[in-house]
Amino acid sequence: MSNGFCDRILKVDLTKGKLEIESPGEKFFRKYLGGSALAMHYILNEMPAGADPLGPDNVLVISVGVVTGAAISGNSRVMANAKSPLTGAIGDAQAGGFWPAELKFAGFDAIVIKGQSPKPVYLWLHDGQAELRDASHLWGKETGETEDMLKAELNEPKLQVLQIGPAGENLVKYACLINNKNRANGRTGMGCVMGSKKLKAIAVRGTGKPGIADPEALKALVKEGVEWRKIDVGVQNMQKYGTGGVLGYQQQTGGLPTRNWSSGVFEEYKNLMGETMAETILKEDDTCHACIVRCKRVVEVKEGEGKWTVDPQYGGPEYETLSTMGSYCGVGDLIAVAKANELCNRYGLDTISTGATIAFAMDCFENGLLTTADTDGIELRFGNAEAIVKMTEMIAKRQGIGDLLAEGPDAAAAEIGKGAEQYSVCCKGSPFPAHMPQYKRSLGLIYAVNPYGADHQTSEHDHAYAPDASDEQHRRSSALGLLSPRPAHVLDTEKVRFAWYTQCWYHTLNSAGTCQFVWGGTWQLYGPTALPRAVAAITGWNTSMWELMKVGERSLNLMRVFNAREGIAKNRDVLPPKAFVPLKGGPTDGVAVDKEEFERARAQYYAMAGWDENGVPTRAKLEELDLAWAADMLGK
Amino acid sequence: MSNGFCDRILKVDLTKGKLEIESPGEKFFRKYLGGSALAMHYILNEMPAGADPLGPDNVLVISVGVVTGAAISGNSRVMANAKSPLTGAIGDAQAGGFWPAELKFAGFDAIVIKGQSPKPVYLWLHDGQAELRDASHLWGKETGETEDMLKAELNEPKLQVLQIGPAGENLVKYACLINNKNRANGRTGMGCVMGSKKLKAIAVRGTGKPGIADPEALKALVKEGVEWRKIDVGVQNMQKYGTGGVLGYQQQTGGLPTRNWSSGVFEEYKNLMGETMAETILKEDDTCHACIVRCKRVVEVKEGEGKWTVDPQYGGPEYETLSTMGSYCGVGDLIAVAKANELCNRYGLDTISTGATIAFAMDCFENGLLTTADTDGIELRFGNAEAIVKMTEMIAKRQGIGDLLAEGPDAAAAEIGKGAEQYSVCCKGSPFPAHMPQYKRSLGLIYAVNPYGADHQTSEHDHAYAPDASDEQHRRSSALGLLSPRPAHVLDTEKVRFAWYTQCWYHTLNSAGTCQFVWGGTWQLYGPTALPRAVAAITGWNTSMWELMKVGERSLNLMRVFNAREGIAKNRDVLPPKAFVPLKGGPTDGVAVDKEEFERARAQYYAMAGWDENGVPTRAKLEELDLAWAADMLGK
Repeated sequence: MSNGFCDRILKVDLTKGKLEIESPGEKFFRKYLGGSALAMHYILNEMPAGADPLGPDNVLVISVGVVTGAAISGNSRVMANAKSPLTGAIGDAQAGGFWPAELKFAGFDAIVIKGQSPKPVYLWLHDGQAELRDASHLWGKETGETEDMLKAELNEPKLQVLQIGPAGENLVKYACLINNKNRANGRTGMGCVMGSKKLKAIAVRGTGKPGIADPEALKALVKEGVEWRKIDVGVQNMQKYGTGGVLGYQQQTGGLPTRNWSSGVFEEYKNLMGETMAETILKEDDTCHACIVRCKRVVEVKEGEGKWTVDPQYGGPEYETLSTMGSYCGVGDLIAVAKANELCNRYGLDTISTGATIAFAMDCFENGLLTTADTDGIELRFGNAEAIVKMTEMIAKRQGIGDLLAEGPDAAAAEIGKGAEQYSVCCKGSPFPAHMPQYKRSLGLIYAVNPYGADHQTSEHDHAYAPDASDEQHRRSSALGLLSPRPAHVLDTEKVRFAWYTQCWYHTLNSAGTCQFVWGGTWQLYGPTALPRAVAAITGWNTSMWELMKVGERSLNLMRVFNAREGIAKNRDVLPPKAFVPLKGGPTDGVAVDKEEFERARAQYYAMAGWDENGVPTRAKLEELDLAWAADMLGK
Repeated sequence: MSNGFCDRILKVDLTKGKLEIESPGEKFFRKYLGGSALAMHYILNEMPAGADPLGPDNVLVISVGVVTGAAISGNSRVMANAKSPLTGAIGDAQAGGFWPAELKFAGFDAIVIKGQSPKPVYLWLHDGQAELRDASHLWGKETGETEDMLKAELNEPKLQVLQIGPAGENLVKYACLINNKNRANGRTGMGCVMGSKKLKAIAVRGTGKPGIADPEALKALVKEGVEWRKIDVGVQNMQKYGTGGVLGYQQQTGGLPTRNWSSGVFEEYKNLMGETMAETILKEDDTCHACIVRCKRVVEVKEGEGKWTVDPQYGGPEYETLSTMGSYCGVGDLIAVAKANELCNRYGLDTISTGATIAFAMDCFENGLLTTADTDGIELRFGNAEAIVKMTEMIAKRQGIGDLLAEGPDAAAAEIGKGAEQYSVCCKGSPFPAHMPQYKRSLGLIYAVNPYGADHQTSEHDHAYAPDASDEQHRRSSALGLLSPRPAHVLDTEKVRFAWYTQCWYHTLNSAGTCQFVWGGTWQLYGPTALPRAVAAITGWNTSMWELMKVGERSLNLMRVFNAREGIAKNRDVLPPKAFVPLKGGPTDGVAVDKEEFERARAQYYAMAGWDENGVPTRAKLEELDLAWAADMLGK
């Protein structure tokens, strides 16, 4: 095995049942690293423009990066990309776990999937071998069942399974991929695409190890992380409270989206805090391959302990879930939220989109656009804890109004009519995650211009760059040449640069196969300058931050090319009506996105990125990035 | 003293005889590093558009960078920038020596000089103090005399002196700055500017040391250099043969400009090789502050040993001098070339421009445009060794035809008329250095678009990127994301990217105050990835190649803004007629620059750089670089 990569891309044609292995070579891996940049290379070259997202022409790429599988924190990430059935634009979703490292151990860097199988199948990859197997017996099974059945039938207790649940089979537009029963490639409906292909699961197991060019240098970096964790309260808190540990901060700053984005404060926020979870239903923390951060939650509610039981094999809610299922819906019942989270993982639903879609429906209900006649009698009001659990189930199974809501808020609003669009809080059809563009202004810009819709993991958030960031936070961001902090609610030239640079940087992380919580740039275990060191130690390449940033820029530009090919550019780089409606209550009372400021920033962002006024990459920018082939696709 | 910088910019108004010290602070130094980026900040902000290069409004900035003075090889560089009297565009010249480090030790990062002194003066900087002193007694003195007199009168045997010679006093348009009697800020007439200001010298002495944030990390880097020199033949050859060691390679590849650019091969090349110098007139090698490369030559010819004596205090000829005074003029007499070199250093003339201007005059003479009536009887023919020595003297003193040639080839050609322009081989009025754009095609592009005219030290040369580069050479360039070597004579998209990226990189070196022979990128002591490590070790900043490259891009963009303000853009990004005339003989027989290829590459280069079709930086590009203030200057 080469240092850092296997040089083995598995290409699967599900229509023909054909498997092929491609070895693009070291120069290719250095140019793309893996992950989303690699995926975009294959997607653009193998998918025709205008493909039906649920048809055989859609290409789903599941990929890891050159860092994946190395024995260092934040290494084990899997990226999924395809045309999104939710947005019609490029789709993108990332997850952690043990599956990503195991894919490398099994001898593969990526799986490029096209076609459509006539019957349910699963992929079985083990030590360099790849097989397509019948999955008829798994079809319809929940994620936990499927994983257990596969472990048993393959007699591999250490098997790692990435799969869809019933939601993916039922083509819920925001169905996700689940691995380890509780790690989700959540956003933009990658599970729906996999379901449309009748691919139930990708089971992997391997005993190989990717080569490490300089094990001593890698060990030194590992040691630095261990030492840093001993003294850094931020990293320690990630283990203690998980991502839910930020919920209190969000509330304090008026940044906790509440009742479908009507307010930035939620009166019952204390029930949902990571600290509360740690004191009540938390069973243990959990982690990804080789990671010492241990941010993952495992919660449990046993029979008789609450209104619902919560099965620990499905993990526990992240901050995003606590807010989308909680404050978005006005629900302050932690067990209800944990149960909804369990169901999402059990059925393979994106918790963000699911919670946000329920909140949208509640807003419609509260405003009389939906009634109990539409909801099988459910009082779909903000604060109804039973409703979030019930609706999650109905969406996964497309029962009753769940069938409509399974299409996502934009499509549902169009069907409901009567001005329901004003309650749909999406960019490009993908619901807002739980960070508020009204007060984090650069994030608002990114929500709009991001090729795969509103996303909170595609750039640094404004608060990392705010004057109240610590010296060390500031020191870390500074490696990207960001030297002048600005308050979160400002969207000036420096903030646009911040948005652009950090968006490129996050694409680098998603290409290298690395976790933002470890390598991102602010309060993480390592700052950005550690990544070139890690990539150099692993691959032996004399690489640099400059070279790595260019890979991220490549990934982002290729996504813009994909969208342009689909007729998606400035016309869909927009924010929904609710972003411009002033919030009510708390520190952000009266605050809304300033439309003029937003439009000015968007134009500036395009220009800084080297794109035309319509947000399409210029030939020169693509040529600078060694992507002339992509410019040819645009007929430039 | 802060780590890496003194935070003391000396501002001198020579008209008023006023000295001020400005402390722009750490953020400023991190944004500009020093050198050319820092200089452009001051020049653009303090010089009005349309200033007379020889008038009081011209601003001359002499600066070093954050690495300067640290105890590591390649640290001791001084940059000089002002409006060039030779080109009318921005001027730029770099030199090594001990003066740069001493300026830091004396407590200054840069000197910003404006106005015009009514009488000759010199600056005396010592341990944080700055004084303007009368220099009437030094005016008219040769560089060696001046330095000795200053050492004596200030009673400072360790004094470092940067100065002009008689050529600068006489306003020879390509007069240079000399330090250590033999190190030259050669190009674009910075000595002429200093002469016009009646500033004879800047004498410095200090016992301070810039702080080092992490001495152990710096020492580790030093050690790596020591180890590398033990095994690397290229670095060893730099000590053995100096830059003249490349002359044989140039001849073999048909890249040795001969008889005013009529051919790429010179039949007497062996006489001029660094190897020949080492066997004959070389007295010893020499170096700059703390540098183990030791590329500098000291040559000596004593009374009776040759036609001319050569005084060792003036050093020895570089490759550029061996070719401009030698092959350019068809002169294969090493002692004559060494003598001409001595005179250039003695009088303060740029050896490249002087040799190239003599070659131009010889071409005019050979073609009957000049006759002995114009030349005081000198047979100004190619191959006339006496003539190069005599003409150097006449130019410095503006005697006879020397007065015309002191204006540079473009101005002289205009005066001579009769089509003499075809023999002037300049970009923006600055003569070609001895690397051939006819076969190094990306270098040809850079000659044309470089803001300060034809220059060989503003980007990597094509051969560093050619397929015959060694693995280690290639490994070093790869840190800038340059992964696909191309033959030297190709000017495709990758070559344009190579030109653009490495030009930014060289501007980074010129801002950090570092030497390309140590940090550049191919066969040097360190590759590019060492520079962020060095800057971090010295300053304590968590910096990266990304951040450092952006500083270089800043420097280059500011120079383009300066030129645009002067009406200089695409209109002067051109190559002279001779570049398109096929060469004769040797491996490059019949080779010329392809005009269509060149123009296509220029347009592509502008677009990659984020400039408009006229080669002017866009507002968005300047904003991306945190230079909105410069965009305001262009009224964009």
